[in-house]
Amino acid sequence: MAYQVLTDSDVLRLTRMKPVIEAIERVFREQANATLVSPPRFQLETENGNLVFTAGAATETEKVIGFRVYDTYSNDHSGHEQLVSVFDSVTGVFKGVIIGNLLGALRTGAIGGAAINAMSRSDAEQLAIIGTGIQARTQLEAAIAIRDIKRVMVYSRNDNNRKKFAEEMSEKLDMDVISMDSPQKCVEKADIIICATNSRSPVIDADWLKPGVHINTVGPKSMNGHELPIEVAGKSSVITTDSLEQLRAYSTPHFLTNTPYEQNIVQLSDIITGKTLGRTSISDVTLFCSVGLSGTEVVVAHEIMKMA
Amino acid sequence: MAYQVLTDSDVLRLTRMKPVIEAIERVFREQANATLVSPPRFQLETENGNLVFTAGAATETEKVIGFRVYDTYSNDHSGHEQLVSVFDSVTGVFKGVIIGNLLGALRTGAIGGAAINAMSRSDAEQLAIIGTGIQARTQLEAAIAIRDIKRVMVYSRNDNNRKKFAEEMSEKLDMDVISMDSPQKCVEKADIIICATNSRSPVIDADWLKPGVHINTVGPKSMNGHELPIEVAGKSSVITTDSLEQLRAYSTPHFLTNTPYEQNIVQLSDIITGKTLGRTSISDVTLFCSVGLSGTEVVVAHEIMKMA
Repeated sequence: MAYQVLTDSDVLRLTRMKPVIEAIERVFREQANATLVSPPRFQLETENGNLVFTAGAATETEKVIGFRVYDTYSNDHSGHEQLVSVFDSVTGVFKGVIIGNLLGALRTGAIGGAAINAMSRSDAEQLAIIGTGIQARTQLEAAIAIRDIKRVMVYSRNDNNRKKFAEEMSEKLDMDVISMDSPQKCVEKADIIICATNSRSPVIDADWLKPGVHINTVGPKSMNGHELPIEVAGKSSVITTDSLEQLRAYSTPHFLTNTPYEQNIVQLSDIITGKTLGRTSISDVTLFCSVGLSGTEVVVAHEIMKMA
Repeated sequence: MAYQVLTDSDVLRLTRMKPVIEAIERVFREQANATLVSPPRFQLETENGNLVFTAGAATETEKVIGFRVYDTYSNDHSGHEQLVSVFDSVTGVFKGVIIGNLLGALRTGAIGGAAINAMSRSDAEQLAIIGTGIQARTQLEAAIAIRDIKRVMVYSRNDNNRKKFAEEMSEKLDMDVISMDSPQKCVEKADIIICATNSRSPVIDADWLKPGVHINTVGPKSMNGHELPIEVAGKSSVITTDSLEQLRAYSTPHFLTNTPYEQNIVQLSDIITGKTLGRTSISDVTLFCSVGLSGTEVVVAHEIMKMA
């Protein structure tokens, strides 16, 4: 067989973050050129739970078509797996499938890396992370692949989680990741802040932000619950998202809906392709609202298959 | 990992047709009980070709949810593969995936077997097949798993194909499969006729039919092209399909649309569950129009996984 069947252990072993971020940047160029096909998600609904399909194709440079499927059953059973399948978009030939749960977070991390590359100060050295889950880990890995980060600080309400995160990521990344005991101390000196929590109330205060900081928000960002205060948007010169269409299609509206900042949100791809200006000064505050552009999973899976 | 990844060679090695047909019969009971969820197919469309998703869940006896995906790219490249993925419909846990092209025809064969079981004479001994492709092969395997067939006759316009089919299937099934040099000679003594051709014009004549015969039509059956003449429907006391909804959703209308026979078509599941009478005499002619009920692929894949 000419196709590949990979699992989480392969993904861990094979993945290098830099080429994955570069692939994501190429997808953003495809999005801007309208060669990215990403229809709304499709759901198979039953009483107990659903299967959700996000399908997509990047037909110009990446030449892949495929889909991710995951379940919405909420239970603690082991054995929940996502599948990401990749086909050649020119011939239709099957290239492979990745079975596991790492790819989704890896993809979101790489999108965060592309945002940091396009929006943060190029001399950013201090990075703060709020949150200690899988999303926080991949965001951090992406950030250090993009900027020459000298110091990483992490905060979580849970003391054990932040200590464990600091310990594990220090070893994994071979750099000092420091556990902080207050969110303010964590973020006030940061050039880049990554919020990757499950919190439905703001975890930082807009007054704590250093001029020039860039922020990625990966966690909740709906009207009914958001990890960032609306005032952060007020301080931001540039606000982006990876998909305005998906952001507007949220079942609960985005937290900036009906605020003065709603109309300021532009697509990250417009900055990457130079259609819109990004940061214009070293003291600009910039904000990226991550929604997880459909079709990116397929490209990331393909990139990992190429590393195999 | 607790899930299975199977390919065509596993399917060939593992599959026993009888339990697969029984699984299909249970799906028909689920269809009648409305515990089968089978939404319309979903397509990801691009300029070069599409991915087609048929998703479904059989939640009562089978307890599976999943989907089949295949591509519509028309080229001769090797490496086109279908995927059928199976999840537990109670927990959402992933059970496995079958990658290959055999499962689709196997599923259609088993549906044909269920139709033969519900509709053909129980003393059927003579079986005729028009067509020599993969669909003809699985239909034949299903038929002999269901009825005590003594004699199999095959016809195809292509002399080589029918000789090769007769030779290969004689060996595979350890019974005489006889190549016939005319379609009339092939079908006129048959108790069961399977039409599994690509022909868009009728391959048999209604006058050739023996009283009591049952017919499965697996090939083209649209208004613009059909392998059976409309007169066969006129001779039939019972006409069934595996899904009236799918039959009515064909992009080109079914060949019996706007004929006096359109209103006579009932769902096979109604006969299997006794809701509607099937054959009422040994001389009834009966007809099954196979459309490929969505959701059945997932159940067949699960059944094969159970055999592993």
